[in-house]
Amino acid sequence: MKYAVIGTGAIGGFYGAKLARAGHDVHFLLHSDYRYVCLNGLQVTSCNGDFILPQINVYSDVNLMPKVDVVLVGLKTTNEHLLRELLPPLLHEHTLVLLIQNGIGLEADVQEWFPGLALAAGLAFICSAKTEPGHINHQCYGQISIGNYSCGDKALIDALVNDFCQAGVEAHEVEYNEARWKKAVWNMPFNGMTVAMHTQTNLLLQHPATRQLITEQMQEVVGAANALGVNGLNEAFIQQMLQMTDDMVPYSPSMRLDYDFHRPMEIFYLYTRPIAIAREAGFAMPKLEMLQQQLLFLDNRTNNVK
Amino acid sequence: MKYAVIGTGAIGGFYGAKLARAGHDVHFLLHSDYRYVCLNGLQVTSCNGDFILPQINVYSDVNLMPKVDVVLVGLKTTNEHLLRELLPPLLHEHTLVLLIQNGIGLEADVQEWFPGLALAAGLAFICSAKTEPGHINHQCYGQISIGNYSCGDKALIDALVNDFCQAGVEAHEVEYNEARWKKAVWNMPFNGMTVAMHTQTNLLLQHPATRQLITEQMQEVVGAANALGVNGLNEAFIQQMLQMTDDMVPYSPSMRLDYDFHRPMEIFYLYTRPIAIAREAGFAMPKLEMLQQQLLFLDNRTNNVK
Repeated sequence: MKYAVIGTGAIGGFYGAKLARAGHDVHFLLHSDYRYVCLNGLQVTSCNGDFILPQINVYSDVNLMPKVDVVLVGLKTTNEHLLRELLPPLLHEHTLVLLIQNGIGLEADVQEWFPGLALAAGLAFICSAKTEPGHINHQCYGQISIGNYSCGDKALIDALVNDFCQAGVEAHEVEYNEARWKKAVWNMPFNGMTVAMHTQTNLLLQHPATRQLITEQMQEVVGAANALGVNGLNEAFIQQMLQMTDDMVPYSPSMRLDYDFHRPMEIFYLYTRPIAIAREAGFAMPKLEMLQQQLLFLDNRTNNVK
Repeated sequence: MKYAVIGTGAIGGFYGAKLARAGHDVHFLLHSDYRYVCLNGLQVTSCNGDFILPQINVYSDVNLMPKVDVVLVGLKTTNEHLLRELLPPLLHEHTLVLLIQNGIGLEADVQEWFPGLALAAGLAFICSAKTEPGHINHQCYGQISIGNYSCGDKALIDALVNDFCQAGVEAHEVEYNEARWKKAVWNMPFNGMTVAMHTQTNLLLQHPATRQLITEQMQEVVGAANALGVNGLNEAFIQQMLQMTDDMVPYSPSMRLDYDFHRPMEIFYLYTRPIAIAREAGFAMPKLEMLQQQLLFLDNRTNNVK
């Protein structure tokens, strides 16, 4: 299968590089790093072994790229609107677009822009960051879950999972809604709270007051999912997420990094959208709504001091 | 009437100094500033005119103080427990104790320690700070409202109001519960939010997201007061508080100063207690409860880096 990567950063860059290294035909769209990667290739420092791709197919203009079978989208969701122009040149009749992004409501929006498009969610469980131009630092984990949103061709999802596995990426298919909301159980409390309290995951869980608050925020996500008829989210899953985070190294989630580096934060799809979707179903998420309000305040200030 | 001041800081020091300057017999208990004030007196820089009290009655030991008719308490509520030992030497059979402190539940606790004691709340509307040893900086406002909690002698309250007025302090009597909860409408959102967001009142109101959050937190206080059967709090009062704050100079409330100077924050009587009282009445304050949880986290960290 032929692949395109839109958003060659910590996530898109990592998974695209793994596929390219395994011999797949991968085409990368780059923006600020284009010239650097043309000259130096794409470098991956990884807990599973470092590697470099000295010669890869890189583009700075999507109109010069070929039509592909699978598009991996690793864009920040603050740039989601760009997909309206970036996707069309890459699509043939049966292209699958995999959104490897955080949040709720992404596939619904992209589907509205491209009604016939085959879409899937890619849920990455990975600690990875782009530390320098053309340099991706993969610290740990790396598995990806694929949730089929609107792809009628089941074999295409299977082929994608296979390609990932053969490239050394642990991949498997999951139920779309359950997977998106399960990821939100971790993402919604920890991304915002590490920004608002200017701290890391471990310290939030060490203090009883914020451990309780994180737990309550997780309960709001589980409650919203249940109100929407999504299966598989319960108190046991919350305990599992807390335990997993207790066992992790002290961690700064992507929103904390965005805030620290004065980049806009992914507030809309991570907070605003799921809170609105839950509210429409009659379920209130007051503590996550307050966190969203605090983040909007901080996001604005960040932009001011940029 | 004979007065004692416990906690000769921004608040107790200011009101005590005004009474002493007007010729009343006032006895000040000091702790860290005792020696300095013995030598240099108590200095007040005030928007209504600076003055200095070169010779006042100062004590470092409450057991050396006389019994008085009125005790003004200006202690930080984080030290409220000290009143169990500080009050007895000052009390005769009809002493009135005026708690010029922020929060909900203070009089109930002190009453439990001293069942027969005559208690009143002093609600100070004042911008004042102790900027150096023995030096109080009174920036603006200054009025004090007296809410009778358990003083059977109505004439004593009147006499206190009179003494304040003759000393140039705008004073009047108010209904105890209404006054305490009305003050909480401003105090609960702004004290904590300026700490959590590390900002000032004006910026919180300028951003639509935090203006909405502050408004919702005020609505939680009004809702709690209504659930407790307290009169006089409604949406119009909230609008009045927002308007007043819009018209104020950019302001850092006392909790923000405490946080910045690594002093413990008054979380218990400003948040924990009113939230618990409302919950017992069946009313939830989720956004103020979250703010309390964030403050407990930040308070702890402050103590760590001290």
